[in-house]
Amino acid sequence: MGEERIGALLIASLPNVQYLTGFSGSAGVLLVTAAQATFFTDSRYDIQAREEVKESRVVIAREYAMVAAAKQTARLREKRIGMEANTVAFAEYQRMKELLLKKKLVPTRGLVEALRVEKDEGEIALIRKAVELGSRALEETLTLLRPGMTELEVAAEIEYRMRRYGGERPSFETIVASGPRAALPHARATTRRLRPREFILMDLGVILSGYASDMTRTVFLGKAPAKAARVYRAVKEAVEAAEQQVATGRTAESVDKAARRVLRRYGYERYFTHSLGHGLGREVHELPRIGRGQATPLPEGATITIEPGVYLEGFGGVRIEDVVVVRKGGAELLTPTSRELMEL
Amino acid sequence: MGEERIGALLIASLPNVQYLTGFSGSAGVLLVTAAQATFFTDSRYDIQAREEVKESRVVIAREYAMVAAAKQTARLREKRIGMEANTVAFAEYQRMKELLLKKKLVPTRGLVEALRVEKDEGEIALIRKAVELGSRALEETLTLLRPGMTELEVAAEIEYRMRRYGGERPSFETIVASGPRAALPHARATTRRLRPREFILMDLGVILSGYASDMTRTVFLGKAPAKAARVYRAVKEAVEAAEQQVATGRTAESVDKAARRVLRRYGYERYFTHSLGHGLGREVHELPRIGRGQATPLPEGATITIEPGVYLEGFGGVRIEDVVVVRKGGAELLTPTSRELMEL
Repeated sequence: MGEERIGALLIASLPNVQYLTGFSGSAGVLLVTAAQATFFTDSRYDIQAREEVKESRVVIAREYAMVAAAKQTARLREKRIGMEANTVAFAEYQRMKELLLKKKLVPTRGLVEALRVEKDEGEIALIRKAVELGSRALEETLTLLRPGMTELEVAAEIEYRMRRYGGERPSFETIVASGPRAALPHARATTRRLRPREFILMDLGVILSGYASDMTRTVFLGKAPAKAARVYRAVKEAVEAAEQQVATGRTAESVDKAARRVLRRYGYERYFTHSLGHGLGREVHELPRIGRGQATPLPEGATITIEPGVYLEGFGGVRIEDVVVVRKGGAELLTPTSRELMEL
Repeated sequence: MGEERIGALLIASLPNVQYLTGFSGSAGVLLVTAAQATFFTDSRYDIQAREEVKESRVVIAREYAMVAAAKQTARLREKRIGMEANTVAFAEYQRMKELLLKKKLVPTRGLVEALRVEKDEGEIALIRKAVELGSRALEETLTLLRPGMTELEVAAEIEYRMRRYGGERPSFETIVASGPRAALPHARATTRRLRPREFILMDLGVILSGYASDMTRTVFLGKAPAKAARVYRAVKEAVEAAEQQVATGRTAESVDKAARRVLRRYGYERYFTHSLGHGLGREVHELPRIGRGQATPLPEGATITIEPGVYLEGFGGVRIEDVVVVRKGGAELLTPTSRELMEL
């Protein structure tokens, strides 16, 4: 806030508000000054906000929380007020301008997001629990896979277990892509039936206690022939090489390069068509970016995915995705599921 | 667009884009002028956009779709360009302003949302399918309810069936609230176990082919004692009275009043603490608003929920929610599940 020369910051992005306050509901605004923080929500969250929000003053507003926050902001001595430019709608910005005629509204970008990159041990413990829940849901479902099941049924079995074991919701629509469809990096589950001698790619995540998991495993129904086994081995070695490169202070670019170098050796580099990974935390995609051209050093405690893939049109594809914590000594792997080729 | 005196409209709200183009992906911008419509998306959606988008020109942009749309907008003869003020982030608005220096950006509100209120028969057929899927998921789950199951397990069983039978995702986090928790209108499913002689309130919805369903049923585990049966009867009669009031040209206010009149007769009016309902379609909450002070006549083809509830602190609560289509002759009920008190 000093750098931006703002005396107060209005925070309306829900993951940012939840991160700063501990609030788990879905409507609220936080006003931060050097002296104090005030959280505004509405009467639906009266009891919940008082229970969850410990370090901010809590105001249960009779009007829209943003309007209540603006009215209090208008009474502040501070003149320059920060507002999150990427999450506040233009209409809302206009309304705030009218409510804060005597203030200067300063659009800010990524202030809280930057704080969220370095997870503390409490957050890492929550992410680990989410990651373990995802692994459990997948591993139990693997025992059910049979030729004739539809991709949708597989997705349903995975999501059922996430929810049954306490997850709030999938962190994205579970991907189940079998046979040639495994060559589509963003395939949705369909009514296509699993067939013997094909890859099944499953990409899944769950939100647990407000934190996201994300993982991908690709299994083979039956005994994998040489080409399938070779593609799998290339991707597995790419994950391992990337994870070995992860450590505090290394660049995301160098991690990305380590994976691509392996795929190049196998002749598959041009079939790896997306980024290597992304940060995850309260959102399933957040900072830091993990890919080409990312020269910023990885910070201690960042939690990131490593997910190389090889997609061969008409043949199928393989992706393996793990979650690791960036530590001084290297990557700490959170995903407990084996990366060996599973032939079911 | 004539009323707003804009020569072109940039549409970035995803439900609006999907409504106007038929596109089912998650990133795209539509530019509409009097002469033509152009849809911009990125290379991930190349094949899909060409398959799904029939009545607009399709541009696969190498850059962010919004930037590609802005560059084409800059070349238009039209001077006044509409932008959706409620969905475009302030940062994006600023960027567009820089890209469109010679244009006048006009914030618009609810232009496409207003078109979406009156559903055509194709849309109603899709909503009916989503509603029927929700009913099927609930009715099958009702046969599994036993004392000792947790609320989370019940939610998992419901969502499992939604997904297994082809739904894309729940339209919101399924609510399962048992015993005294049924008195909390927005309760999340918890690890609380179902107990005999209690209400179980279940509020659920599913997205199927891009359209949302929404329903609530409250059942009793065991034989309902007189007070519980009376609360249930009051809510059931309130739903019926409200549905009888629905017809093209009637006001939402009059529908709301019909429900509240019944609850007043039972002495429960002050325990009904939320709106009577809402429109639903591509979003689970959309226009029209159904509640007090809504004096606009209901339009033909609007699809709305009717969901009165009575919440008695410490005792529990009852809510019943159906989806109906506004027709000239009255409400057409889409929800097939019985409204009679189910004692399980």
